[in-house]
Order: sequence, then structure tokens, then C-alpha cells
Amino acid sequence: MTLHPDVDTAVALACEAAGAWAGSDGARRAALLDGLAAALENDRGALVALADNETHLGTARLNDELDRTCFQLRGFASLARNGGFYDRIDDAAVAGPPPAGRPRLTRVRVPVGPVAMFSASNFPFAFSVLGGDTASALAAGCPVVVKGHPAHISLSRRVHQLAQGVLRSLELPAGLIGHIDIDTYAAGLELVAHPGIQAVAFTGSLAGGQALGRQAQSRSQPIPFYGELGSVNPVVVLPEAIEQGAGGLAKTLAASITQGSGQFCTSPGLLMMLDSPGARALAGQLAVEVDQAGLHRMLSERIHQGYAQGVSTLKQHSEVRTLTSAASAEGVDGGFVGLTSAAAFLADEALRHEVFGAACVCVLATSLDELCAALAAVGGSLTTTLLGAEAGSERDLQVFRVAQKISGRVLFKGMPTGVAVTHAQHHGGPWPASTQPLFTSVGFTASDRFLRPVALQDAPAWLTARAGVPV
Amino acid sequence: MTLHPDVDTAVALACEAAGAWAGSDGARRAALLDGLAAALENDRGALVALADNETHLGTARLNDELDRTCFQLRGFASLARNGGFYDRIDDAAVAGPPPAGRPRLTRVRVPVGPVAMFSASNFPFAFSVLGGDTASALAAGCPVVVKGHPAHISLSRRVHQLAQGVLRSLELPAGLIGHIDIDTYAAGLELVAHPGIQAVAFTGSLAGGQALGRQAQSRSQPIPFYGELGSVNPVVVLPEAIEQGAGGLAKTLAASITQGSGQFCTSPGLLMMLDSPGARALAGQLAVEVDQAGLHRMLSERIHQGYAQGVSTLKQHSEVRTLTSAASAEGVDGGFVGLTSAAAFLADEALRHEVFGAACVCVLATSLDELCAALAAVGGSLTTTLLGAEAGSERDLQVFRVAQKISGRVLFKGMPTGVAVTHAQHHGGPWPASTQPLFTSVGFTASDRFLRPVALQDAPAWLTARAGVPV
Repeated sequence: MTLHPDVDTAVALACEAAGAWAGSDGARRAALLDGLAAALENDRGALVALADNETHLGTARLNDELDRTCFQLRGFASLARNGGFYDRIDDAAVAGPPPAGRPRLTRVRVPVGPVAMFSASNFPFAFSVLGGDTASALAAGCPVVVKGHPAHISLSRRVHQLAQGVLRSLELPAGLIGHIDIDTYAAGLELVAHPGIQAVAFTGSLAGGQALGRQAQSRSQPIPFYGELGSVNPVVVLPEAIEQGAGGLAKTLAASITQGSGQFCTSPGLLMMLDSPGARALAGQLAVEVDQAGLHRMLSERIHQGYAQGVSTLKQHSEVRTLTSAASAEGVDGGFVGLTSAAAFLADEALRHEVFGAACVCVLATSLDELCAALAAVGGSLTTTLLGAEAGSERDLQVFRVAQKISGRVLFKGMPTGVAVTHAQHHGGPWPASTQPLFTSVGFTASDRFLRPVALQDAPAWLTARAGVPV
Repeated sequence: MTLHPDVDTAVALACEAAGAWAGSDGARRAALLDGLAAALENDRGALVALADNETHLGTARLNDELDRTCFQLRGFASLARNGGFYDRIDDAAVAGPPPAGRPRLTRVRVPVGPVAMFSASNFPFAFSVLGGDTASALAAGCPVVVKGHPAHISLSRRVHQLAQGVLRSLELPAGLIGHIDIDTYAAGLELVAHPGIQAVAFTGSLAGGQALGRQAQSRSQPIPFYGELGSVNPVVVLPEAIEQGAGGLAKTLAASITQGSGQFCTSPGLLMMLDSPGARALAGQLAVEVDQAGLHRMLSERIHQGYAQGVSTLKQHSEVRTLTSAASAEGVDGGFVGLTSAAAFLADEALRHEVFGAACVCVLATSLDELCAALAAVGGSLTTTLLGAEAGSERDLQVFRVAQKISGRVLFKGMPTGVAVTHAQHHGGPWPASTQPLFTSVGFTASDRFLRPVALQDAPAWLTARAGVPV
């Protein structure tokens, strides 16, 4: 594969920067991460305006997202400062023959090396140039080469320039945060193929992620590909939750479905219920609320076309009844709510595909077993929400087991959109939600993706005295 | 792909057993693991005789290996009993808007489900039916379906029957420990392709591992493939170590190289030194010691042929001087020590391939930089041993950095053969040593391969009260 010279240069600079950054202590990593957060905040007005112009996501949401991005950077800074990435396991020597007898072993974790990071279309701040993947990789001691997303490339350029200013002010090498500004499919593949790259973080489409994942695997040295490739995020509403107040629930659900015109990886794409008059009423109310929601233009023409195609397929499906009436107008798509049976959902895999945007299919089951079968058929999802499972009945347990099997996060209250950045967070469910479901892309254990354990056997004092900072 | 009925049956039984085993508490898991260890010990005499007959590894080594296997089973039992696999991260709710405000999140880890385990040819106990992969998977809450290795299939059958007896005595389902007794290449692929299998543990050849890894990736739901595919285990002897006593060192090295006729994944295949009369003398002494070592018949005809082919290639290489003189006799291969230059090693990738067996190539470098370049060219190895790096000079640091980059374990004393089973152990280096270098196949964190995090958001009391045991 011929590499574009910009790709080669960016990765070469990252490789040059990798050694010293791997050996940096927590204070140095924290200074960079804090500095990046401050730089974003100092340029907030211009950044948000630029982002809104490119993405149509609105200034309120984009200001919130910038806050979250700074929170992430500062959270990882705090962890680095407190030694969070220099953890070790010490096993003292034990005299005597094996298996009980053993040498002294000290296990540390070392940064894997330069990380290729693919910006997400739908998070121009929080999962782009200085987003969660970048923060978690830098905190782990790895340089990052970002592939800017064409849906907000001007913003990417500006944020990258800001980052370069912070690196200069801290006398850190420019190669720590690289930026590939080439809008071709090939450039992404070349970045993954570059022998200097040691891991890939990707959030995007199933087809794009599969192509990059194959590239990562077909290198002469295969590397880990951490991809988030799509999620339908079922919301299971059990009878108790329907009874407690369908009106409020319809509003809350509609808000979650239509927020950001549905362009969230955790947007609820399925509403699953046991069939009942109340369930049908909830589906109807949801459609009314979705029809009334103010949507905005989608992130890109490609995303709009994908949504329109997905909705069109659902509308024409013989087993799906369309409940919404809003049509597209002036380039803004209408939301979609449809109704189908669990039997139809189980019979046709096409109904289980994610439609990225403000679309939700209500699935009515005639029995608990059928509900569970339909939920299991989802296969893999970032989240499953279970409403009305507070009592812990056998039924709750049965549904929960299925939810846990297919999801990286199970919610008992609220809506799946809005992913808290905490230690316990896990954002990554079974395939295709994540290509590596044992790791998370959101939350403070996201750095685990970029740290490789090494056991040091009978290490001399000069090495063990370094308190875990890799040399 | 058509599945052999035995494969289908074994996986179906494992799937049936998976739910209850995932929900088992530590006492129950420990009872099984302890019971398996006791059963192996009770049948020690017959098992060791059978293993020796099939593998030629000798009763002393096989008794030691059986001890290690029981130690592993009991170690994982102890961890399970003490709650080691029910860890959780609790983040309390924080009032206020995000990003600081957040719901309550509880992160648990759940077993991934049935694991396909491919027995290693060279560890008929410790990495076979009840070996480390099986112990770590059962401890994590996952059923195991073992593909018995044809090099010791009678032993596999007997151990599997013992295991079935333990399961019966504990009233546990037979499907918890399945056994595929089909000696075809296709059966392995079918096992990995079976939709019920959720992870694969493999120790074996590069070609075999790559084929199974591709199968794991090409499923409609790709699954993690934990493969250990080969390692050359360089031993770098710095001048201080040569001066300290080349005679003893040659004996120790030869013992490590020839132990088990070299059929260890951590057998030293490379001896790297700065060129000097002392270095050349050490290489010569090593050849004498290897010539005098008593080797035994290799594990299988296929392994013998691979070794003979590898040694033949080295012997005919224009840049390699053969130092050993022992020839093969009565089906027993002779050991091999060759001498080459770092320049030749860097120029020809063929010199860097693992020769599985009692073969070692001595590589002489003319400068420190060349030594480091040759070491870096190894790419990925389970271990690197650095002898004579006690002072922590700039030179030591430079060599260590390369060693750490290419290895999962770096030793400063002793030899890489003999892998202690501890918490800090890490057995898995960069490709091709491991397909997943962030995980280990030896030591008590090996269970991490089979546990998937799930974040529970605002989980009700009936769920959080379960002290982490998955439901």
C-alpha cells in the first residue's frame, strides 16, 4: 500500500514523540491535558460557532459538549497526576521449587505506542480531535494521530491548531497530536496500515468500521481495533412503567429519540412492550410527541441519505405500521415511529438494523418469552433500558438476563442518551456495538485500551525504584 | 459451514450450562476447581504414565507439570472463593447537570459465555483439558469446550472422563467441560464458527492460529481470539555477564534450550551479544553443552519435521556457521547452535523465525546500536532476558527499552523457561507472541479474557444486593 505523504509524516512524528511521552510522569501528562481543556474554553465562542455552522447541532448542545470534553480532559489529567496509569502488581519471590516457589515479579503497564483516532461525525468536540479517545490515549502515554471527520473539518483544523499551540507552550513535540486532513476513504486505510500505528480507536458506521478493522487485522503485525459500529438501544417498558404514567414517558422517550435529530449512538431505536391497550396508547403518544419535536438538518448529506433510506424501508415494510405523520421539509427530515409485532421482528432481520437518526420501532410481544426472544435477537447493543423492573420479580430477572447479555450498559431509570463520564461507565457492548466489548470508549477506564502489561522478573533496583513510570 | 454433530452437541451442552454457571457463587466455582485438582492427583500414576507414553516428555517433568496444573486450579479456586471475579466499581450519583452531575453507576463483570479451548501439544496437563485456559475460564464463570490435541489424545480422553466424574459428584452439568475428540483441521474451525462459542483460547502454531483467528473474525458475530502463536525469546548477554562466568552461563543456557527437547514456548531461540572473544567463547561453550544434552523424541512427527526443516534452513544459510556437531539418531533430533552476525540477522527475516525445538542462533553485534536494532527486529516475543544489566547505565536503559517494546516479560536473572503462576505474571507479548497482547494466558489475571464489563445504571436494590455475583 502506498502511503499518502501526509499520513506518513504524521505517523513518523508520532513515533518520534512516543518514547519520551511514554516515559513522562503524571504531572507532565496532566499539564498537557489541563492545558488542552483551558485552550478549548478560551476559544469557546469561536469554536461553538464554527461547530454549529458545520454540524447544525445548535449552540446549547455544543456548549454542553465542549463542557463535557473539558471535563474528560481534566478527569484524565487528574488520574494521571494521581498515578492512575502507573499501576503495578508486585509479587515477592518465594523460596522453593515451582509451582509455589517463584522469582520476584513486578507487573507494570506500558503505552502501546501511537494511536490512530477516527473522529465521530456526531460529537465534533467530545469524540473528535481532543475528545475521549484522544484524552484517554494521551493520558496512557500514547501519541495520537487524528483523522478529522469531513462533517466538521474546519472545526477539526482549528482545534488541532489550538492543540499545537498548547504543545508549543509546554515544549512538547508537535507529533504528540497529529491530524490527517485528507477527505478520502483511502487515507483512513493508509493510517491504519502504517506500521508505526499500534492501536486504532474508531466511532462510526458498520461498513466503515469493518473495512478498517480488516485492515488492522491484515497488517503483517495486526493491531487492536477498538471500533464502535452501531447500536439500536432497546427500551423495554414493562406494564408497571406503562401504568405509572404513559404521558410523561412518551415525552421523555420522544426527547431522547429526537435529541440532536437522533444522531446519538445511544439513541433509542426500539421500544419493546408486552402488547396491551396501554402499550399501544404509549406508542401512539410517542408518535405525537415525535411529530411535534423540532428536528434540525442532519450532520451530512450521507447521513441524511442513510436515514431517509432506513425510514423508507420501514415505511414500506408490510409488517410495520407508520404512526408518525411528519414529512421532510426544507432539508430537515421528519422523525419516525413505527409499530410492529415481535413475531415480525423475529422473522425479519432487516427490522433489527440501526437507522441512525430520529427513528424508533415499537415492538409488541404477545408473551414474556416472545419479548425476551425479540430482545435477544438484537444481538449486541451499547445499552438496554428496562423500565418497570423495580420489584425484582422472576419476570424482571428473566428480562434483565437478556438485557445484560446483549448490552454494555443496562439502565433502570432515565434514557440511554447522555453518557456519564465516570470510572464505572462502560460504553461498549457485544458486536456490533463494539469490536472489543471488554473495553470502553467512554469513562476513565478507556485508557486500558492503550496500556500493555509487561512482567519484570527480578528487576534491578534502578528499574523498580521508578515508581511505575515506564522508562 | 456444516458443523460436525459432536461439535454441535458439545457447544449446545455448554450453552445450556452457561446461565447457571455464570450465576454461581465463588464457593461453587472453587468446589469444582479444587475437585478437579484432587481428581488429577488421585490418578497421578496412571495419568503420568499415559502422558509419557504419548509425549516422551519424561515422568519427572510430567509429574512437575501435573503439580503445576493442580496449583493453577487451586489458585483460581482460591480467587473465586475470595470474590476475585465479582469485582465491581461503584460510582454514587452526583446531583446537578452533566458532565459533573451523573446517575448512580455500578460496573460488574459478567462471563462472556462458552469458551473454545485448543490444547497445546507441549503441555499435556498445564495447557490441555484442565490446564490454565480451562481453569481461568471456569473460574470466570464460563463453560469450556476443549479441542483435545492429537499428540496426547488418550490422555485428553482420560482427563476429560475424570472431569466428568467430578462434575457428576458435584451435580454440575456435563456441558461445563466439553471435549471434542475429532482429529481434523475442520473440526477446530467448526468449533470456532459455532455461534454458541463466545471466545477462543489457543496455543499453537502461527499458521494454525492465523486460520482460527480469521475464522473468529469472519463470524457474523466476531469473537475474541486469544492466541499464542510463537516466540523466539532472545537472551541478551551484556559484557558484564559474560565476564562473570561464561562456563556456568553456557550450562544454564543449554539446559534451558534443551529442556523438553526445546519444546517450550519460552525456549531461548536467540543469544544476542556484542562481538568479543568472550562472546564467541560463550557461543562455543554453549554448542558443546547442547551437544552433550540428552534430548528425547519430539512430541509428534509434524513437530519433528518442522524442527528438522528449520535446522536444515539454518545449516544451509550462507551467513550462519553451525557450532554444534550432534546429528539425529534413532528418531531423536540433535540440538542446534549456530552463529551469525547482527548485520545478517537484520538483512534476512528468515533468521528471525522461531524454530520450535532445541535450536538457538547466536547473534553477534558490532555496536550497541546494532544490538538494539537486531533485538527490535524480533518484533514480538513472549520474553526477553537481559543478563548483565544490573547497574542501570544508559546502555542498560537503551537495551531495556527495546526489550520492553517487543516482550510481555523481561527477565534480569535466570532463564525464560519455567513460567511462574502468580498475579503479576504476564505471558503474552506483541504479535505473534500473542494475538491479544493486553491479556495473559498464564497467571491469575488470565480470567480477565473471559469477563465482560457491564455498567448498571440506577440499578434497583434487588440487583445491587447480590454482592457482585452475576444473575
